[in-house]
Amino acid sequence: MNKLFIIKIGGNVLDDPAALSKFLTDFAAIKEPKILVHGGGRLATKIGEQLGVKASLVNGRRITDAQTLDLVTMVYGGLVNKQLVARLQHLGCNALGVTGADGNLIRASIRPVGEIDYGFVGDIRPSGINSTLLYFLLQQNTVPVFASLTHAGGVMLNTNADTIASVLAIALSKHFDVRLIFCFERKGVLRNIADENSVIRTLNAELYQELLKQGVFADGILPKLENAFAAIRSGVHEVLIGDAASLSRNTGQETTGTLISK
Amino acid sequence: MNKLFIIKIGGNVLDDPAALSKFLTDFAAIKEPKILVHGGGRLATKIGEQLGVKASLVNGRRITDAQTLDLVTMVYGGLVNKQLVARLQHLGCNALGVTGADGNLIRASIRPVGEIDYGFVGDIRPSGINSTLLYFLLQQNTVPVFASLTHAGGVMLNTNADTIASVLAIALSKHFDVRLIFCFERKGVLRNIADENSVIRTLNAELYQELLKQGVFADGILPKLENAFAAIRSGVHEVLIGDAASLSRNTGQETTGTLISK
Repeated sequence: MNKLFIIKIGGNVLDDPAALSKFLTDFAAIKEPKILVHGGGRLATKIGEQLGVKASLVNGRRITDAQTLDLVTMVYGGLVNKQLVARLQHLGCNALGVTGADGNLIRASIRPVGEIDYGFVGDIRPSGINSTLLYFLLQQNTVPVFASLTHAGGVMLNTNADTIASVLAIALSKHFDVRLIFCFERKGVLRNIADENSVIRTLNAELYQELLKQGVFADGILPKLENAFAAIRSGVHEVLIGDAASLSRNTGQETTGTLISK
Repeated sequence: MNKLFIIKIGGNVLDDPAALSKFLTDFAAIKEPKILVHGGGRLATKIGEQLGVKASLVNGRRITDAQTLDLVTMVYGGLVNKQLVARLQHLGCNALGVTGADGNLIRASIRPVGEIDYGFVGDIRPSGINSTLLYFLLQQNTVPVFASLTHAGGVMLNTNADTIASVLAIALSKHFDVRLIFCFERKGVLRNIADENSVIRTLNAELYQELLKQGVFADGILPKLENAFAAIRSGVHEVLIGDAASLSRNTGQETTGTLISK
């Protein structure tokens, strides 16, 4: 099977002009089929403040009310997405900016109201991915650039960018050997949180269980690792957790981040 | 050749909830391949006011400065485009929202600075259309929904929606029998501006010249007619000028608007 890179970037890249320039140049240079998934960064907060949209929190959880939905649709789906696309086009990469609504690429279901009503938030599963259209777009050498938005019932929905990247990776694993790359602020998963040079270079399920028992992992990294192994169990070939600055290395053989496989 | 409808709507449809609902239902019901082109309507002005972006005018001409560019990229390319796409998806129409940057669908050149510096405005030509990708998207039964934005040199550019619709129609006329439909506030081109029932039902170049000499046309409609005949001369099969409420009729044989052909 052909390789496919699915790469997720967050605010730490989007909000740093130098880091973003380097990332986009490195991303454009990847020769294999690729998909980019992005959130919004500080821009959404800044524009939200100007528009008087207050972050809505219930029990410490962020709620997407109607105003916030319009804000993220504008900023993630409009401003950030199209600026990334225009810059990638200029770098010779045929980017095509989309949300999950476009081409019905990601059909979600609105999150059921439980103890908390999260508002306009979409939950997604691999069966909701239009992998036929995605496969065709990749065959045309276009590069899908996803804003972290999905849809259901005629409305847009806010959806976590990590989740979108994972679910895309699972759905596309029937067509490709997927390497799912999460760019975050560290070089990789650290054996010792105080030592940036203690990156665990490779991790499989067995070693993960062993290190879990030893209590090696800090709280912050555990959800990322759980996500990664869930993707691996669902057929994703490899998951890499690393920093955006090392993208070129991390799309090659000699990776610097944490490469996770079966 | 297969038929293709390219339909442009403006603020008078976008700003009227009842008119927009009817339009989207009728648009979704069109069985032939189709493309929608939209501007922004009053929403951009309203959000611009909230953000403190002032309409920038030089000698009465609207200028797209950097702030205005961000505003239209957010509102046209994000909010309006994705809301239209989500609603069309719910109506069973596989809409795919795009700007000219996405998939390099419309490559522009930034308008040269003459007496006026229009700012971030893109001029476009049929040779700048990626008709290969558009043709492929239409073959996949997706329905491109264009916000009136293009790109050049790594930045987004503001481009007139009527122009985008015309240039798309010209470029796609080598693959399709295109009917280009401009929805505006009247039922069609009127012989007598005071009489809504005086729609000129069909118009060709010969009759146009004759009526021009008679001074039949009001100033407001002349640029639309010039555009229409320019499209016809460049290979577009038919141009229809009519109202959004009559879309179902105007995509059939028995049109109510003004049908323009050679």
